[in-house]
Amino acid sequence: MLRYHALMAMPSRLLSVTRTLCSAALKFDGAVSMVQGASRGIGLEFVKQLLENNDKGHVVATCRNPNGSTGLINLKDRFAERLSILQLDVTMENSIEATARSIKETYGRLNLLINASGILSIPEVLQPETTLSKVEKSSLMLAYEVNAVGPILVIKHMWPLLKVGGGYGTEKDVAVVASLSARVGSIGDNRLGGWHSYRSSKTALNQLTKTISVEFARKKDPIACILLHPGTVDTDLSRPYQRNVPQDKLFTKEFSAQKLLSTINNVKRHDNGKFFAWDGQEIPW
Amino acid sequence: MLRYHALMAMPSRLLSVTRTLCSAALKFDGAVSMVQGASRGIGLEFVKQLLENNDKGHVVATCRNPNGSTGLINLKDRFAERLSILQLDVTMENSIEATARSIKETYGRLNLLINASGILSIPEVLQPETTLSKVEKSSLMLAYEVNAVGPILVIKHMWPLLKVGGGYGTEKDVAVVASLSARVGSIGDNRLGGWHSYRSSKTALNQLTKTISVEFARKKDPIACILLHPGTVDTDLSRPYQRNVPQDKLFTKEFSAQKLLSTINNVKRHDNGKFFAWDGQEIPW
Repeated sequence: MLRYHALMAMPSRLLSVTRTLCSAALKFDGAVSMVQGASRGIGLEFVKQLLENNDKGHVVATCRNPNGSTGLINLKDRFAERLSILQLDVTMENSIEATARSIKETYGRLNLLINASGILSIPEVLQPETTLSKVEKSSLMLAYEVNAVGPILVIKHMWPLLKVGGGYGTEKDVAVVASLSARVGSIGDNRLGGWHSYRSSKTALNQLTKTISVEFARKKDPIACILLHPGTVDTDLSRPYQRNVPQDKLFTKEFSAQKLLSTINNVKRHDNGKFFAWDGQEIPW
Repeated sequence: MLRYHALMAMPSRLLSVTRTLCSAALKFDGAVSMVQGASRGIGLEFVKQLLENNDKGHVVATCRNPNGSTGLINLKDRFAERLSILQLDVTMENSIEATARSIKETYGRLNLLINASGILSIPEVLQPETTLSKVEKSSLMLAYEVNAVGPILVIKHMWPLLKVGGGYGTEKDVAVVASLSARVGSIGDNRLGGWHSYRSSKTALNQLTKTISVEFARKKDPIACILLHPGTVDTDLSRPYQRNVPQDKLFTKEFSAQKLLSTINNVKRHDNGKFFAWDGQEIPW
């Protein structure tokens, strides 16, 4: 209901941008893409748009519980062998390794890796902190494990496949690794405070991604790593915190994924290690 | 032997700066200061200089194993009741709470808190990573727990004492919280890559400190939180990694602590949330 409401309230300017983007073909047509954290929200939307906008591309969608994602099951019905669904939990490194082995056997390469998983709150477990006095070690550690460590371990194990992939089979000269960060992970842009666990986990993800990008560049690997801020998107993650978001700043997941795929589509080798917002603008560290 | 060598090789220009700083009185003369991570290295040096350069100030020195620090035991012999030594392990929150209770009962306030603890490597457990393929979850989590979470929990529990302290009894208008970060924690300055666990833990510490500083400012608390890069200092932490450090960039702990205390001494309320190098220059995030 809320999503419908947000979509209806979206300014016509944004909707027209959306239509323009929809019709633009992606440069990943022959790609093997992996979307990690694909059961719902923006992750699921990435899978959908990658399949709809490429006629020949294959997508590997991973999530913790594939049987629980009706969205992925519906896409499997539509796209058959072009979509593979694999179980992966970023907190279980052996599930990441198993996914890498499976992709290696089936496709032998990766051209695009999108890390879309992330946690902000879990009832009774993790709450975005409003003050230092509510900061708990367990929350800090959990957010770090899922939002920073998890995506980096995924990149670690997909690295050999991305090196093989590069731009092979696509119109690009590099493979792309895009991890969903958040503007609140920016230290320079931090004017509101709060959300200690979420913020610092995304900041750490930014630093880890930058660190990796330096190695990829030095080794001349055909891979560009970027970080993306999706805007405030109407998903389960943001729903409890949308109250103060102006209507024209609350995006549908369709719109956000389209904008982010447009940025991913245009990534060049020299963008390796950069942090982009949904509108393509760079965000300060 | 190595420390002696480094000291002998120090350019006379640096030694003269050291002498000038030694003679400058600190503005924390009537202060109650706490140095967390004080058993050795820069932390121990902070305790020594705070005691030597203030005639009336009290220092609470904390470390994991007070009985194992001959440096602290020697200072206790010299400075008697002006030095309190308490057991504190940043990975054990109850030891932080116990320290806060003890300081509250004995002094009722804090004017200065220095977080000096930190880990870079532990034989067989944690090694600074030279490549993504060597990044391990256990190392990332351990560095985060000790270098980012620990200092923040210390600030959380000392916050009430710092609010009471403010500039009371000193020549300052605010209490100061100074946490040892590192230039390698800067994302914008990351040109070498590697050291994933250490780097990202310090980056997270930077973001957490910035987040806290925003709350302190909004609540008009008389506290300024800063982050410090000590330079490459000849301590146990850096010793295995000094090979490529030019002689004039390898500081003694005496020199580094003096420079950092000079910055701490000059901190104003508007410096809250900033990241300074040993020479007082701001470091980009």
